[in-house]
Amino acid sequence: MDAKRRYTLALSCPDRVGIVAAVSGFLAQHQGWIVEASHHADYASARFFMRQEILAESLAFDLDELRRLFVPIAEAFGMDWRVTDSAVRHRVVLMVSREDHCLNDLLYRWRAREFGFDVVCVISNHDALRAYVEWHGIPYHLVPVTPETKPKAFAEVLRLFGQYQGDTLVLARYMQILPPEVCAALPGRIVNIHHSFLPSFAGARPYHQAYARGVKLIGATCHYVTADLDAGPIIEQDTVRVDHGDFVEDLVRYGRDIEKAVLARGLRYHVEGRVLLDATKTVVFR
Amino acid sequence: MDAKRRYTLALSCPDRVGIVAAVSGFLAQHQGWIVEASHHADYASARFFMRQEILAESLAFDLDELRRLFVPIAEAFGMDWRVTDSAVRHRVVLMVSREDHCLNDLLYRWRAREFGFDVVCVISNHDALRAYVEWHGIPYHLVPVTPETKPKAFAEVLRLFGQYQGDTLVLARYMQILPPEVCAALPGRIVNIHHSFLPSFAGARPYHQAYARGVKLIGATCHYVTADLDAGPIIEQDTVRVDHGDFVEDLVRYGRDIEKAVLARGLRYHVEGRVLLDATKTVVFR
Amino acid sequence: MDAKRRYTLALSCPDRVGIVAAVSGFLAQHQGWIVEASHHADYASARFFMRQEILAESLAFDLDELRRLFVPIAEAFGMDWRVTDSAVRHRVVLMVSREDHCLNDLLYRWRAREFGFDVVCVISNHDALRAYVEWHGIPYHLVPVTPETKPKAFAEVLRLFGQYQGDTLVLARYMQILPPEVCAALPGRIVNIHHSFLPSFAGARPYHQAYARGVKLIGATCHYVTADLDAGPIIEQDTVRVDHGDFVEDLVRYGRDIEKAVLARGLRYHVEGRVLLDATKTVVFR
Amino acid sequence: MDAKRRYTLALSCPDRVGIVAAVSGFLAQHQGWIVEASHHADYASARFFMRQEILAESLAFDLDELRRLFVPIAEAFGMDWRVTDSAVRHRVVLMVSREDHCLNDLLYRWRAREFGFDVVCVISNHDALRAYVEWHGIPYHLVPVTPETKPKAFAEVLRLFGQYQGDTLVLARYMQILPPEVCAALPGRIVNIHHSFLPSFAGARPYHQAYARGVKLIGATCHYVTADLDAGPIIEQDTVRVDHGDFVEDLVRYGRDIEKAVLARGLRYHVEGRVLLDATKTVVFR
Repeated sequence: MDAKRRYTLALSCPDRVGIVAAVSGFLAQHQGWIVEASHHADYASARFFMRQEILAESLAFDLDELRRLFVPIAEAFGMDWRVTDSAVRHRVVLMVSREDHCLNDLLYRWRAREFGFDVVCVISNHDALRAYVEWHGIPYHLVPVTPETKPKAFAEVLRLFGQYQGDTLVLARYMQILPPEVCAALPGRIVNIHHSFLPSFAGARPYHQAYARGVKLIGATCHYVTADLDAGPIIEQDTVRVDHGDFVEDLVRYGRDIEKAVLARGLRYHVEGRVLLDATKTVVFR
Repeated sequence: MDAKRRYTLALSCPDRVGIVAAVSGFLAQHQGWIVEASHHADYASARFFMRQEILAESLAFDLDELRRLFVPIAEAFGMDWRVTDSAVRHRVVLMVSREDHCLNDLLYRWRAREFGFDVVCVISNHDALRAYVEWHGIPYHLVPVTPETKPKAFAEVLRLFGQYQGDTLVLARYMQILPPEVCAALPGRIVNIHHSFLPSFAGARPYHQAYARGVKLIGATCHYVTADLDAGPIIEQDTVRVDHGDFVEDLVRYGRDIEKAVLARGLRYHVEGRVLLDATKTVVFR
Repeated sequence: MDAKRRYTLALSCPDRVGIVAAVSGFLAQHQGWIVEASHHADYASARFFMRQEILAESLAFDLDELRRLFVPIAEAFGMDWRVTDSAVRHRVVLMVSREDHCLNDLLYRWRAREFGFDVVCVISNHDALRAYVEWHGIPYHLVPVTPETKPKAFAEVLRLFGQYQGDTLVLARYMQILPPEVCAALPGRIVNIHHSFLPSFAGARPYHQAYARGVKLIGATCHYVTADLDAGPIIEQDTVRVDHGDFVEDLVRYGRDIEKAVLARGLRYHVEGRVLLDATKTVVFR
Repeated sequence: MDAKRRYTLALSCPDRVGIVAAVSGFLAQHQGWIVEASHHADYASARFFMRQEILAESLAFDLDELRRLFVPIAEAFGMDWRVTDSAVRHRVVLMVSREDHCLNDLLYRWRAREFGFDVVCVISNHDALRAYVEWHGIPYHLVPVTPETKPKAFAEVLRLFGQYQGDTLVLARYMQILPPEVCAALPGRIVNIHHSFLPSFAGARPYHQAYARGVKLIGATCHYVTADLDAGPIIEQDTVRVDHGDFVEDLVRYGRDIEKAVLARGLRYHVEGRVLLDATKTVVFR
C-alpha cells in the first residue's frame, strides 16, 4: 500500500459551533491520521470552509466506506462536500491556440510529476502545436472555430471532454471566448489564465492596455470561467515590475513568465482540492 | 565646498542623432564629472529623455552660468529642460486628513534626512494631527472643507502653498478631491497616493472594492494629480499578497504599509528629478 | 462585553491521532466559537502544533475556568500550552541604540493600535532618542554600556524588564550583544531584528559584507535571541532588490525599510501567539 | 537589411572626465542612432562602465569598420571593450545531469526565440535527457564522469565546446564540480545556477541546509564560475517565500521555479552583453 496516499475532504456549510469537533471526532474515532488541516469562517457569507488531508492507510476501510460513513455528518450540518483520493490522478483537458508557453510549462510539470494531474488530451483551434504535444504521447485534437462553426465546434469540445472523462478544462491561453452553454455545463471546472491583473485590463490585448496606461507593474490572473467574461472567481494572481523602457513586446515577454507561474499555482491548488467556491470569490487553502 | 554637491540636468526633446554627444560634449568641455546618467528614447512619442548628475565642484563656474551656457544647446534641440542643485532642498507642502501613516512615515524620512526635501508646512481639513506635526517644529494649518466653503478653502490652500514657496504639494491620504483649478495651477507638481493598484478600484473605498472582488493581491499607486480623478501619470506602484482570511480591516492594515512605501519612493524619485513626464505617462530614472 | 474579545490557545505536543478531536470536542462541548484555527504536524520532530482563536463571549465561563477545564486534556496529550486573552495587551520593552527607524515604526504602530501591544518603556545605551520617546508619554531609561559596566548594565536591564512587568524584550537595532545570562533568563521572549538575510552576513556590518560580495538582493531577519549570536530561531525574513549602482549607504537606506517591515510583522506574529518554537526553528501561523 | 539589427558596444576603463563625450561624439559623427545607453561609475574600483546599443542601419559602414574606427578611442582611454552584433546569435553549450527543469525552460525560450541565443549542443554525464533534447534537433553528448575519468572527461568537454564554437558554457543544474583548468580556460564564459541565495548554503544539498536552518525564504543564484566554488561574481538572484509547512521536497519544488527564472534572466543579461565584470562583482545593465 502507498504510505503517502491521502484522502482529501473539502467541505463548506453554514457556520455554527461544533463543525470541527464533529469532523475531527469522526476522523479520530476511525483512527484517521490528519496530515494537513485548514479552516476558514467567512463572516460575509456566514459559511464555514474546511479541508482535511487524511493518511489513507490510517483508516481501516476504503474510500467508498469513508464516504458512506460521512453522509450523516454532512447531512446534519448541510455540507457541500467531496472526498478525493491522491491515488486517482486529476484528468485535465488543455485548450490552446498558438501561444505555447503555458502548454510547455504544464507539460513539463506533468512529465516531472510535480502534482497529481494528467493531461489527457489537448484541444486547439490551430494545428501549430501538434508535433510537440504528440511527442509526449498525448492526443491532439484540432477543432477550428469560425463565427459560423462556433456552436458546432464547442459541442465537439464538450464531446471530447466527455470522451476523455475530463475533470477540468484548462484554457492555457486559448484565445476564443467560450459560449455561455459551455460555461454553464462545467461550473467550477473551467480554469483560465488571463494576462492581466484583474479587474484591470479585462478583455482583449491587456498588455497593450497596460502599456498605454503606463502602469509600473503588470500581472496575470488565474480564475474560474463563468459566462461573465473575465469576471469569474479569482484563484491566484501575481505581478512583476516593468518600467518606461519596456515596450509592449517586453511586457508580453515578462508576462509569459508570470502567466506560467500563476496558472501552474492556480491549477495545483485546484487539483489538490485547495480551492473552495464562496459565491463570487474563492477560499484557497495553500 | 560640499564635495558631494551635485547639479542635476533633466531634459526631453524630439529624438534625433547627436543629443547625447552634444550634452556630454558640453559637459566634458567644461570638465563636468558625470556621477550618474540615464537615457530613454520613447518610440511611441518619438521623444528622447535624459538625466545627468554632475559633481558641482568639477565645474569652474556656478549654477547660473551653467544654465546660461546650456541655453544654445537646449534651443538647438528644442529641449524641455531644468537644472536643480542638491544643495537646495525641495520644499514639500503636505496635505492630510485623519489617516496619519503616510504623514508619520514622511516626517520620519525628513528627520532622518533620507533624501533632499523639507516639509515646510502641513495643511489639513481636521485638527487631529496638529500636536504630532508641531512637535517637529513644522507649522500646521487647519483648512476645513465643506461643500459651501470648498472654493474658498482651496484658494487658501493655494495661498499657503505660495506663502511657503512650495515646490510640490503632496496629498498624503488627503481625502478631498482637488478642484480642477488647483490641478491646473500646479501641473506636474501635485503628488497623490491612491490606495489601490490603479486602474483597478479607482474612486472611493478601494479596499472595500478589492475585498468584494476577491483579488489575491492589493496595491497602491503614487501618481501626479490631474483634473481627471485617479487617472494622472503613474510614478510608482506596488502590490502585496492577501488571502481569503483577510477582512477589509486587514486589507486596510496591509495597505497602509504599501501606501507608505510607494509614496516615499515616488516622492523621492520626484524630488531627485528622476521623473519626466511623457504625455500621460512617466519616465522614471531609478 | 467586548464582542471581539478572543482567547487564543496555542499548544504543541507529540503527534498522534485524536488531538484535534479532543481540543475541538472540548471547545464545542462548551459552545466555544472558533474564529481562526491552524494546525501543523512536523515530521522531523514528530510534534503537532495548534492554535485556536475562540470568541470569548461564546463561552459561559472566564479565562481562569477555561484554563482549569483544559488541564486534563493538556495532561493526557503531554501538551506544552498557553492561553492568552486579546483584552490583555502584550507588554513590550524596547531596546535601541542610535538608529531610530524601527523605534519610529513601532511607536507609530502602537499609536495606531495596529495590534495588541504596548511599549511600556524604552531602554537605550544613548540618550539621543529620549525626546521623541517621552513625547509619547513612554518612560525612557538610559543604561550606558562599557566593557567594564556590562554585567551591571544588563542586570539593570533585567531589573527594569521586571519592574515594568515586560512580556517581551525587543531589540530594535540595539547594537550591543546581550550576555548569555540575559538570553538564558528570557528564553523565547527576546526578539531581535538583524540587518541581513541570515544565515548570510551574520555579525557586524552586514551591509558592508553584502556590498563586498556583490549580492543582488539584501534582506533582514527577525529572530529569537539565544546565546548563539544571530543563530536563534527565525520568525520572519524578507529581501529587496539592489544593484551595482547602490553604494553601502543605499543598502543601508533600503535596508531600513525592510528591517522595519520584518520586525513589525515578526513582532505581530509573536504578540498574537502565532509563533511556536520547534527546537531551533519556528512554526508561524500567519 | 534588418531594421532592428543592433551593434552593442560594452566597455570599461579607468574613470575620468570625457569618456561619454568621446564615445557619443564618435557615434554622432557617424550618424549612429543610440537605441539604449547605460553608464556606471564604480567608486570602489574607480572604473567606468558603459553599454550602448546602436541601430546597425544608421551607420554607413559595417561592424569591422566600426571596430577599426573605434580603436583610437579605446586606446586613448585604456578601454576593455567589445562590440557584438544582434544578427549573430550567441552559441550556448548546455551541461546537465538528471534534473531537467532548467533544460526544459531554456529549450523553450530557444524555441520561442525569446532572446538571441542558440543551444548548439547539450553535454551530460547521464543519458536520461537524450530523447527530449534530440527531438529539438540538438546534438546530445554523453560524457560520463567518474573520479578516475574526470580529467579525460573534462578535456572532452572542452574539446566539444571548441568543436561547436561555443561562446558560453551554461551549467543548468550540472551536478559535477568543474576542475580548475576548465574554469581557467573560459574566464567569464561559464554561467552556473546555484540552488540557494548565496552566500548562504553554498556547497551540497542547499535545500536541506535551508530546511534545517528554518529560513522563511529560499533563493537561487546565477553566477560566473571560478575555481573558487560558489564564490564567483553574482549575475542575478531571487527569493521565494516558504514556511514551516514546507518539507525539503516542497523547497525543491518551489526552488525549481526560482532556479529557472534566475538562470533565464541571468543568461539573457549575459547574452545581450549587459553584464560587465568588476573584479569579483558584476555590473548588470538591465
